[in-house]
Amino acid sequence: MDKTEARIRLAIDAMGSDLGPSEILEGVAQAVELSPRNTEFLLYGQQDILGPLINKHSILSQSKIELIHCPEVVGMDEKPIAGIKAKKKSSMSLALQGLKEGDADAMLSCGNTGCLMAGGAIKLRTLEGIERPALCTIWPGRERYFTLLDAGANPHAKPFHIAQSAVLGSNYARVALGLVRPKVGLLTIGTEEGKGNEVIHETHAMLKDIDGSIINYAGLIEGFQIFENVVDVVVCDGFVGNIVLKACESLSKLIGSFLDEELRRNALRKTGALLSKGAFRSLKQRINPEQFGGAPLLGLTKNVIKAHGSSNRNHVSGAIKIALDLVQHDILNQVLEDIRETNEILRPEPLLNRD
Amino acid sequence: MDKTEARIRLAIDAMGSDLGPSEILEGVAQAVELSPRNTEFLLYGQQDILGPLINKHSILSQSKIELIHCPEVVGMDEKPIAGIKAKKKSSMSLALQGLKEGDADAMLSCGNTGCLMAGGAIKLRTLEGIERPALCTIWPGRERYFTLLDAGANPHAKPFHIAQSAVLGSNYARVALGLVRPKVGLLTIGTEEGKGNEVIHETHAMLKDIDGSIINYAGLIEGFQIFENVVDVVVCDGFVGNIVLKACESLSKLIGSFLDEELRRNALRKTGALLSKGAFRSLKQRINPEQFGGAPLLGLTKNVIKAHGSSNRNHVSGAIKIALDLVQHDILNQVLEDIRETNEILRPEPLLNRD
Repeated sequence: MDKTEARIRLAIDAMGSDLGPSEILEGVAQAVELSPRNTEFLLYGQQDILGPLINKHSILSQSKIELIHCPEVVGMDEKPIAGIKAKKKSSMSLALQGLKEGDADAMLSCGNTGCLMAGGAIKLRTLEGIERPALCTIWPGRERYFTLLDAGANPHAKPFHIAQSAVLGSNYARVALGLVRPKVGLLTIGTEEGKGNEVIHETHAMLKDIDGSIINYAGLIEGFQIFENVVDVVVCDGFVGNIVLKACESLSKLIGSFLDEELRRNALRKTGALLSKGAFRSLKQRINPEQFGGAPLLGLTKNVIKAHGSSNRNHVSGAIKIALDLVQHDILNQVLEDIRETNEILRPEPLLNRD
Repeated sequence: MDKTEARIRLAIDAMGSDLGPSEILEGVAQAVELSPRNTEFLLYGQQDILGPLINKHSILSQSKIELIHCPEVVGMDEKPIAGIKAKKKSSMSLALQGLKEGDADAMLSCGNTGCLMAGGAIKLRTLEGIERPALCTIWPGRERYFTLLDAGANPHAKPFHIAQSAVLGSNYARVALGLVRPKVGLLTIGTEEGKGNEVIHETHAMLKDIDGSIINYAGLIEGFQIFENVVDVVVCDGFVGNIVLKACESLSKLIGSFLDEELRRNALRKTGALLSKGAFRSLKQRINPEQFGGAPLLGLTKNVIKAHGSSNRNHVSGAIKIALDLVQHDILNQVLEDIRETNEILRPEPLLNRD
């Protein structure tokens, strides 16, 4: 089924974000220019804020944009399940609802991560055969990008969940990174057999079982190999993935601050920094690639994409590109098929009525 | 008991290291000059290699140095338990043996981490009341240094082990960072009560029980807070700690490489980089502080310090300083006392013969 010719409808939560709705709308405007002509945008949010912004924007006012009024907003500090349940008329809730009812093919939010994950799981449920969704992130490596999951959707992961995440991540690497047979690595400590812990041993055995037919399993990898492009898909449970993601994000910010401080320490350094300022701009873009501004929550019955709360217009536009890629590559059906095969191998049904 | 006046003997594994024995000896020579006069160094390694290096070194040849010949070396790629058991005459094994028999007050190695941890656990055993040792690292934060443990000694940690690590880390922060009441944080995902996983919930309850009397517990922290000096002691299990440590180490190397590449991309940037080269040197030192070149394996009956395989002379000298600090502050007895109190609270003995 080739969806590239069909109409594609994207639901955007235009409210939840650190930089505010106008930055999200600028991102949508950029995306409009880069998207296929058959793309339509459903903007969920407060009419009195979004309406004037759209009307006075030369690109948006002439685009295929529908504004759906939502009186409430989920705050960045609200608790996951309580937040989404309490605010049924919020832009996040109604965008998820629109997605569920088939009004849209994918949904994007820069809002509260916990609420989006809880809302996605409650409203949309998981694809047939999948037990838990996984948040799938793209990171810069030494030579090329790679994907790491689960970045925090499932902090109580069992080996079977992590094995399913490997299948989800492989599909995502095919779509987002254009790889045919992405190499999968299981994140652990020490790569000798026997090291790590019980969950790792069991997951490792499962990944070996589905290697070849469903995924391209390269084995165990250690923390120091994450960025070395030893594999294209780094798989781990949501507890480890979330901590590593957040620690690495904040470390790169810290290094940026230290560099900035050191370069301002005297006049000579300041002059040097001015001459090489292009290098610092390129460095920033390499570490925080805007084209991968969104992280899909894979394993649900619909495409949900989470963008960082601090996303600027370029990140929003990048996240919309990811949403389009997921829809155009029909990732939901690809995943459904791979998971069916995975479950046949890892959880064979009892053979009833066998002669 | 004040040990500052007593003789201090340090056992050094002079063989295992990426840069070779001569770099370790240069580190020892630096340390000789900075250490109290009552410090003696026991160098374990191959006589034909170390002997000439010591004899022709103006500082070492005149210092209180004893050379203990060890015919074997534990390789960097050997398996933990097999490696240490197969090579009983290695510099690492014999240095641990010397420590066990009271020939030395602390032992330092830049060699194979897995073998050192296995060897330490097998030969030295844990202090009374402690179930598992923990590897204790010091990291640069935005405003000041902090300690993170366990960095990989115990990847199967139970809540009780992590609670004991909090006590070990508090003691280490007192010695290494000079803090009186270091703040302890438990690393997790999402800081609302109920988030995280079962191990986190149980550990959190235990840490609250020993808060005040034994540790200064500040509560749960997330990955993005690690570097923000919200706490002085970040505690987690060895699986998470090792992965975060190695991921962060390799990320800072990657950022360094990217920066280097970008600064060399054209003549203008190269000129700028030359003018501000002092900034890059300072940045490197801030991210990889040489004065904290060693990580103690705390919880054993003796002081064992692991230095990075790639340690240069400054890192070795820094690690020796840490070894001296541990001995001078009598950390073993401090830990013994705190752990006794911890266990009384967390694991009360049944009250027999109570009237």
